[in-house]
Amino acid sequence: MDDQQQEALTGAQALVATLADNGVSACFANPGTSEMHLVTALDGEPRIRSVLCLFEGIATGAADGYARMTGTPAMTLLHLGAGYMNAGANIHNAGRANTPMVNVIGDHAVPHLKYDAPLTSDIVGLAGPNSRWIKSADRVGDTGKLAAEAFAASYGPKPGPVSLLLPADSAWLEGGAKGEVVTPPPLRAVTAETIAAAANAIAAASKPVMVINGTALGEAGLQAAARIKAAGVRVLTDTFYPKMRRGAGVFAPERMQYFAEGAMADLEGSDLMLLAGTSAPVAFFAYPGKPSLLVPDDCNVFDLGDASTDSAASLQALADALGAKEAAPVEALIQPDVPTGDLTAQSVGQSLARHMPENAVVSDDGVSNGLMSYLPTQNGQPHDWMMLTGGAIGQGMPLALGAALAAPDRKVICLSGDGAGMYTNQALWSMAREGADVTTIVFVNHSYRILNIELYRTGAGNPGPTAKNMLSIGGPEINWVQLSESMSVPAVEVRTAEAFDTALADAIAAPGPRLIAAVVPG
Amino acid sequence: MDDQQQEALTGAQALVATLADNGVSACFANPGTSEMHLVTALDGEPRIRSVLCLFEGIATGAADGYARMTGTPAMTLLHLGAGYMNAGANIHNAGRANTPMVNVIGDHAVPHLKYDAPLTSDIVGLAGPNSRWIKSADRVGDTGKLAAEAFAASYGPKPGPVSLLLPADSAWLEGGAKGEVVTPPPLRAVTAETIAAAANAIAAASKPVMVINGTALGEAGLQAAARIKAAGVRVLTDTFYPKMRRGAGVFAPERMQYFAEGAMADLEGSDLMLLAGTSAPVAFFAYPGKPSLLVPDDCNVFDLGDASTDSAASLQALADALGAKEAAPVEALIQPDVPTGDLTAQSVGQSLARHMPENAVVSDDGVSNGLMSYLPTQNGQPHDWMMLTGGAIGQGMPLALGAALAAPDRKVICLSGDGAGMYTNQALWSMAREGADVTTIVFVNHSYRILNIELYRTGAGNPGPTAKNMLSIGGPEINWVQLSESMSVPAVEVRTAEAFDTALADAIAAPGPRLIAAVVPG
Repeated sequence: MDDQQQEALTGAQALVATLADNGVSACFANPGTSEMHLVTALDGEPRIRSVLCLFEGIATGAADGYARMTGTPAMTLLHLGAGYMNAGANIHNAGRANTPMVNVIGDHAVPHLKYDAPLTSDIVGLAGPNSRWIKSADRVGDTGKLAAEAFAASYGPKPGPVSLLLPADSAWLEGGAKGEVVTPPPLRAVTAETIAAAANAIAAASKPVMVINGTALGEAGLQAAARIKAAGVRVLTDTFYPKMRRGAGVFAPERMQYFAEGAMADLEGSDLMLLAGTSAPVAFFAYPGKPSLLVPDDCNVFDLGDASTDSAASLQALADALGAKEAAPVEALIQPDVPTGDLTAQSVGQSLARHMPENAVVSDDGVSNGLMSYLPTQNGQPHDWMMLTGGAIGQGMPLALGAALAAPDRKVICLSGDGAGMYTNQALWSMAREGADVTTIVFVNHSYRILNIELYRTGAGNPGPTAKNMLSIGGPEINWVQLSESMSVPAVEVRTAEAFDTALADAIAAPGPRLIAAVVPG
Repeated sequence: MDDQQQEALTGAQALVATLADNGVSACFANPGTSEMHLVTALDGEPRIRSVLCLFEGIATGAADGYARMTGTPAMTLLHLGAGYMNAGANIHNAGRANTPMVNVIGDHAVPHLKYDAPLTSDIVGLAGPNSRWIKSADRVGDTGKLAAEAFAASYGPKPGPVSLLLPADSAWLEGGAKGEVVTPPPLRAVTAETIAAAANAIAAASKPVMVINGTALGEAGLQAAARIKAAGVRVLTDTFYPKMRRGAGVFAPERMQYFAEGAMADLEGSDLMLLAGTSAPVAFFAYPGKPSLLVPDDCNVFDLGDASTDSAASLQALADALGAKEAAPVEALIQPDVPTGDLTAQSVGQSLARHMPENAVVSDDGVSNGLMSYLPTQNGQPHDWMMLTGGAIGQGMPLALGAALAAPDRKVICLSGDGAGMYTNQALWSMAREGADVTTIVFVNHSYRILNIELYRTGAGNPGPTAKNMLSIGGPEINWVQLSESMSVPAVEVRTAEAFDTALADAIAAPGPRLIAAVVPG
């Protein structure tokens, strides 16, 4: 783009060009009238793939998946405050996954705001709490500069979603200027002194444990974690993490238990807890008479840095400081036999271990069925496993969509609860539209099953018919095959382990989106 | 409930009992772990009907529809900040409709908050901007008191959604006490002096116009409006209003035009604009070079009070002050012949005029097809017409659900765009579950058609293939019959005016939910 063209840029063009210059390559969008100039600016920007989503929560979930695969934020395009709200749960989730994301929120033209038109709202107020950074480009001349600032801010200190408001007049007016190409700030490095102190603490401890997350869950980080384990430190991941390398030949840390009482029993006697790429583990929810902080009373906590640090580098340095040798080789490929009989989450996991191709990517929003599918895949082909870290169900399918577009040469498997899947079923349409190579497995148990468990754990009393009814989604049963095919994603329902195994093999063999409704016990 | 029982109330029970005592009769809910005690409290409260929704935006849209019919707020039950965000767009819409609504948002137990568990967020920050009132019941002893306060606050001064946060420990602990039965504050009354001044202003004006909304759109208000019109004042409603009585024998005001240039041309020469139950009309969006405020330059504005006033009472007083006689009788029932040929929004309107039973309720989220369906129904059987006032599409089906449950003896008709319908398609499931007597008509044009219009109006340039693609939802086409039947709502697709007429007659004759996919020009 020469200087003359630069002169004539609209604000929308300056914003889009700046993000493209910085390496943003996808925009997940649900535009409205106030975003029309952004739509045409994207139309003229071949470096950014525009993906239409039928609900804003799909857009932000997909942007999360895209960035988890590429390491670079995707852009979203949201329609004023209401569009931001629709997008909000998956922005919350992305924040809890520390995923960089640039949410561009169209707003009314600045002179129009004072008239309080129907779609006017306090967008900065609404979006502020879940934004690492938020600004409004109230002057067309600032659009490029703020786009560069937003891009950089999405990297941190702690990576996450940022919000850039673009008033319609700042979009349509000429006078935009491209912002700089910025070098994203690297994750923080832990000092040599801290590493040495951690090594000393480990030497002094009788039962040390380390909880890891973030970059430690990549291939290099896990190699270092294996060495640290060989040096006598128990290694756990957080219960939920954004992405981990797994499978044959990859060191498999244990996983922190979900239920507080189980986690505390499991950690009993640990006298040192090192934290790398995470914070002290806490119970997902509070329960009467149960602990919130999942650290034994007499256990010292050693902080090796939260998600703003490069935990892989910390672990490599710590392994060296411990003089830890290379760990023993871990188990190679184990492919189970065809599972038979009743279809369960475990048999689903066994079939996954049998059929997942090398380098597959899993998006796990399986809720109560997630863990039992997870365990059997440990020694399948090497793959990446992504989880819901923020607890707002309805992330699985959008995340899978984004991951598939970011990594078109890899098979993506989505695990979703039926309750979770209903939140964002519109993702299926974008999968079909984009030919996304995703096999979605919906665990159909006609129930918010996790809540049936939690109802008892919270001591909320004996459920009567109304309470039971509020946790059941089986009246009427949702026909997932029809739902999926209504959006042009071919689908099949299965009720036995054998039938699932065949359906999974078929779906994985076929390019493009497929859905398997896996009817499992409620 | 005697004193002994009162002693043993949990906070959740105190909250629920207080709302029930105050006349709340429905709770639209999507609960999570932190709301389990609310679920069991609702289980023990026969005065409140609990309705499960598969996405929180359904719950708030339905609560809006319920309150528009009953005049009493419904309760919703939302799961922390993420649940609030999912619910947010239809809360925005309810705010713009001035609909009272009590949103109860479960939060973590107070001692748990400091650990920043995955679902923790700044709920007061997120919910504040769209709440008329917001408080957190951080002490179990306050739960009943604050429930009463929230209920009263939803009535105003300007009615709308309020947010009551209920931490899980305040829900589960005993020590709750019921709050008072409160008398909701009435809408404000305009003074006699103001009415006299308005009458004088009308007498002095050469071309007066009055824009009305709120209670003025009920039967008594419209009778007064007809008298004012007979006295020489042109009467218009806002372009979008929460609810209006219409049909044979009911005075029909004109309707403010949507597009700014059309509205301004229409109002040219008006030298006095009275506002009753509303604010000065403004353009829905800003456009380059077009006005925001839809009031001619030399036109005086006379404020008879916004949505916080009883505009029906204002109009009756004004009609008396003008000495206005009873207006001439308005047109009686006109039922068109069977429309023939291509299916259009207009032919849909003609069929509605033919088949809508007396006292039907219409929920209109028809977007670009709304107006052409609206006009032909003017002289159908008397009915109530409800509109999307907040501009966040995806309200139509949830609103219809709530209206149907509030008025089980009335037929509800939902008009939805296909783009709008996809936002909240999960409403169909709750319609099936509750046997809601709703006939949903989806205008299937495979397009965000309004945006194709707006793309040109905003001067966003000639759309290239990417831009056109971002406004088309036809690749792939959504199969609405499959989608609807996947959630057990019987459905049919029609492509001619005659076929639609038959399908509508059939759907209206059948009790319970039905869906008609009306394929109209794109």
